[in-house]
Amino acid sequence: MTEQITLYTAKICPWAQRVELALQEAKVEYTRYEIDLENKPTWYASKVNPASKVPALAYGGPKVSPDTPSEESVKLAESGVLLEFVADISGLLLPKDAVSRAKARFFIETATAKFSPAFYGAVARGESPEGILTVIETIQALLPAEGYAVGEYTIADAAITPLFARANVALKNDIGAYDAGEGVRVYNILQSDPKFARFRKYYDDVTARDTFKETFHEVSSFRRPMSSVVLTCLRRRSI
Amino acid sequence: MTEQITLYTAKICPWAQRVELALQEAKVEYTRYEIDLENKPTWYASKVNPASKVPALAYGGPKVSPDTPSEESVKLAESGVLLEFVADISGLLLPKDAVSRAKARFFIETATAKFSPAFYGAVARGESPEGILTVIETIQALLPAEGYAVGEYTIADAAITPLFARANVALKNDIGAYDAGEGVRVYNILQSDPKFARFRKYYDDVTARDTFKETFHEVSSFRRPMSSVVLTCLRRRSI
Repeated sequence: MTEQITLYTAKICPWAQRVELALQEAKVEYTRYEIDLENKPTWYASKVNPASKVPALAYGGPKVSPDTPSEESVKLAESGVLLEFVADISGLLLPKDAVSRAKARFFIETATAKFSPAFYGAVARGESPEGILTVIETIQALLPAEGYAVGEYTIADAAITPLFARANVALKNDIGAYDAGEGVRVYNILQSDPKFARFRKYYDDVTARDTFKETFHEVSSFRRPMSSVVLTCLRRRSI
Repeated sequence: MTEQITLYTAKICPWAQRVELALQEAKVEYTRYEIDLENKPTWYASKVNPASKVPALAYGGPKVSPDTPSEESVKLAESGVLLEFVADISGLLLPKDAVSRAKARFFIETATAKFSPAFYGAVARGESPEGILTVIETIQALLPAEGYAVGEYTIADAAITPLFARANVALKNDIGAYDAGEGVRVYNILQSDPKFARFRKYYDDVTARDTFKETFHEVSSFRRPMSSVVLTCLRRRSI
């Protein structure tokens, strides 16, 4: 695997962090290029991702500066697609047997489809963050007794960790459109209720990894009030 | 590959047809079991799919009657997950190289995310079916000059064909919540406007396959008025 990889990403974006996590977990070399989502470079949509979103990859072609992408590289987008791509090029981050692979993908699909709207509903629409607790119970029930989402670390963990981490910061700091105090209240339940012990262990496991620490930028991810760019990022796949 | 496979499916459901198409294209043997979505068997949620949706697979375990599922089989659900699973167990229906695989998955993600809400919006919410034309133009632009979504037939084609086929029947017969005559008008544009020539060729190619003819049930799929069960099926992933 000698093709160059350039990752177009943004620190605030959970979907972009998914891919950066996967690249680092798979020890795939890449060049990181931060896209300012509030002021996107004019060449980004025309030369990298017509949808003008992050994450996107430029794969192959000559080594060039990321801000002058080569026409010879293949441009790929959509975080779910890119997670699979990293697994494909590395031969890592997915189990070998078909049933475990299906379980990893089911985890991605279910955890994303349930968590994303509950989180967005709370921080952007002012719905009660209690909804996040309900969803975490459901996701927790998918976890095995120990280890990561399907035992070994896979793209399933890279997919959900960025969303969990952002919810953690938002609730802890009571940032969101919900009633004041509700975020902290729900955060304290998550931290102490024995019902969430398995979730806490999982959260500690995934966030203890160096790859997480290197790719998560708390300050950039949330300031109060949440910027429209952050909300736009979270909204994606959330409705 | 000697494990038994039982597919729980429903003729009206496009997401279920995806998987049946893939199984047939990959020449994987399976036992088909029709779930009456208006009157689901009591054992279905408890023994097969807790979400009580189709499609679902029982994989492995002893050969048993589908209505008495064995605890020894693995139960898998979510059509996107199952498409990948069929590709994994058969070694077919996805290209070998990582970039082409990414393109197939990007096609599934994009075509589904765009087509499904436009179709549901028209038939259920009375939005103009013109929206379907816009989306078809976008999807058409993803198609290569010839062949299927990424050249050879893959899970990308199995994923989108059931949605296209149902939209075709609905528009042709002017079935939907939109203004009377609008469906037929849009259908005629799709049939005759040179702008949609590539889409027409693609549609003809995917629907000419025996696997499509064996798995698509026009009468069961749409009656007028559209039943709430059909609408519920279409709605999934549509918002």
